[in-house]
Amino acid sequence: MIVLYTDFGSTDIYVGQVKGVLAEWAPGVAVVDLAHDLPPFGVRPAAHLLDALARRFPADAVFCCVVDPGVGGPRRGAVLEADGRWYVGPDNGLLSVVGARSALRRTFRIDWRPAHLSNSFHGRDLFAPMCAWIAAGPFPADKLVPTDGLDVQFGPDDSPTIIHIDHYGNALTGLRAGAIDAEAGSALEVAGRRLMPARVFADVPPGALFWYENSLGLVEVAAREGSARASLGLVVGMPVRMVRPGEGAGP
Amino acid sequence: MIVLYTDFGSTDIYVGQVKGVLAEWAPGVAVVDLAHDLPPFGVRPAAHLLDALARRFPADAVFCCVVDPGVGGPRRGAVLEADGRWYVGPDNGLLSVVGARSALRRTFRIDWRPAHLSNSFHGRDLFAPMCAWIAAGPFPADKLVPTDGLDVQFGPDDSPTIIHIDHYGNALTGLRAGAIDAEAGSALEVAGRRLMPARVFADVPPGALFWYENSLGLVEVAAREGSARASLGLVVGMPVRMVRPGEGAGP
Amino acid sequence: MIVLYTDFGSTDIYVGQVKGVLAEWAPGVAVVDLAHDLPPFGVRPAAHLLDALARRFPADAVFCCVVDPGVGGPRRGAVLEADGRWYVGPDNGLLSVVGARSALRRTFRIDWRPAHLSNSFHGRDLFAPMCAWIAAGPFPADKLVPTDGLDVQFGPDDSPTIIHIDHYGNALTGLRAGAIDAEAGSALEVAGRRLMPARVFADVPPGALFWYENSLGLVEVAAREGSARASLGLVVGMPVRMVRPGEGAGP
Repeated sequence: MIVLYTDFGSTDIYVGQVKGVLAEWAPGVAVVDLAHDLPPFGVRPAAHLLDALARRFPADAVFCCVVDPGVGGPRRGAVLEADGRWYVGPDNGLLSVVGARSALRRTFRIDWRPAHLSNSFHGRDLFAPMCAWIAAGPFPADKLVPTDGLDVQFGPDDSPTIIHIDHYGNALTGLRAGAIDAEAGSALEVAGRRLMPARVFADVPPGALFWYENSLGLVEVAAREGSARASLGLVVGMPVRMVRPGEGAGP
Repeated sequence: MIVLYTDFGSTDIYVGQVKGVLAEWAPGVAVVDLAHDLPPFGVRPAAHLLDALARRFPADAVFCCVVDPGVGGPRRGAVLEADGRWYVGPDNGLLSVVGARSALRRTFRIDWRPAHLSNSFHGRDLFAPMCAWIAAGPFPADKLVPTDGLDVQFGPDDSPTIIHIDHYGNALTGLRAGAIDAEAGSALEVAGRRLMPARVFADVPPGALFWYENSLGLVEVAAREGSARASLGLVVGMPVRMVRPGEGAGP
Repeated sequence: MIVLYTDFGSTDIYVGQVKGVLAEWAPGVAVVDLAHDLPPFGVRPAAHLLDALARRFPADAVFCCVVDPGVGGPRRGAVLEADGRWYVGPDNGLLSVVGARSALRRTFRIDWRPAHLSNSFHGRDLFAPMCAWIAAGPFPADKLVPTDGLDVQFGPDDSPTIIHIDHYGNALTGLRAGAIDAEAGSALEVAGRRLMPARVFADVPPGALFWYENSLGLVEVAAREGSARASLGLVVGMPVRMVRPGEGAGP
């Protein structure tokens, strides 16, 4: 399957153009819209969110990733194979968190130009055909040059920031919850507030603010039947901090 | 085909995760997005809208229905077979209008847990695999327990309220138009106004407010080339009342 | 493949109903959402945008086109074959720019009514089945009557207006860039400003306003990492004018 992960806007005219290319070049391959409303210039939060989302997909998935404010400039196109999944997109850091956290990875530079390459829509002209070849074959070995790694690397560390706010108003952070002892009562500092953990929405009263381990394994700020975004004035990029029980306030 | 009917948000990251599961577990089965922007906590209006929408789909359709403010709490998962179509979702009333209006129905409790069940995303972890098995086989008989009926039942009656407002600003009600004599001139009371019926938008002047039998067979409040929502301040849940010719004003 | 081009709203309940029909009547045919958020009553800009978008699709594509404020009124349904692609929709001008610019074209009137034709949703009841037959066969020759041309024709000329504003805030015009000498420095007048051309976003400083030939070959008003819409107060339908070097201000 080919999975689309972009800032093209789900209400706009760009996703359909990419899907037209995929339907022509990779007929019969399932195409899944994972995200199309990522913040247009937010490469770093999108890189962290991609890692959390992608590891739920099967090993044969090919991700077409486009958050690309530098399109038409000097940044290069990259292909990453990481733990069996494939990622195609700009080499601007977007693929780098997945790469840094993978046990097995290979990276390639895209060494191919279509007959007509627009300056502003490499998602359609360059990355979509590449995804089609990787998903449907034949593998485009002659169009890829192995590299030692990605040009731009954000590293494997968690991002102590808000990386996505969903339409319910819940805010996903770049903190993976696995290492945090929620049961011991670690609090999350965000927007000047300290929030306590809960296991699930139904465990707190309506309107209450809390944090919990979400379905992607991330620390998430939430309000039951309410909007944490609106209550706390949250925006993508805002810093968060986990405070262990007994630990003092942050600086 | 599998039909998705949710409040996951068409611009958000949840629908794609469900589709990833379906593409893996039910490859080749068509997946149709019917609604993803239902009001997050509006189980009752969504139950009435589902009945109107679903009966236009063929008998082999499997509906994955998620408006589920109680996810992670005590509410159970249910499967409904109704007049040949299948419905999977929370047993919180969402499936109950379809069920109550069906001539032939069977209900089941979902007696299965995946290896990893999140507390907050049963749509992806529980209902999507169930839909995949029902649509693509083998039928998950060992994972379902027949029940005498749904736990939460809204009954078969019409809902004299606004159940959906579309992006044009037209407001669908939970009144089925079949029993109403529009030609005789029944008026619809809504937001303190009495609106007369029209057959079609082109029959009234631009901007005019009216009601008509919409393409789902429901009474709908509309404005020609304008927004009934904005003109009348309509919101989902607002009461409406049908007034037969000669009948006095409501209480 | 069947390509959907409508004002049905990507967040609403209409696209899914159309896809239900297509999944039943044309199983296995790829369905691509090209646009669903066209301005509801903007037939003319949608006609120009359709021409720019459609010529990127393969010759076997069938376009289901619905911007149809006159649905239920006297306007007829039309089928257009143009340069090998097929277009189905209302005969209100929507298909006419594609038709006027095509070297080879045939036009038909839809001479068929389904058993149940709603007054307000011909996209689902009339145009979707027609698209399914054209895409999946058998060709519905008995349901189409050849005509000498479309009833409403906008002609082949460029439209010196804004025809679409994307979610980044960039504004597409109805001017095809091919005939314009951008390198010579032609300026674009819009909203009382004169904008100079650039080749690509990366060539101008962040926030700068410019025009460029976009990936569809159209003249587009843009701001680097900013919103031209917000900066200039742009709306669909606003006039634009190309000013050649040395040419004076417009009237």
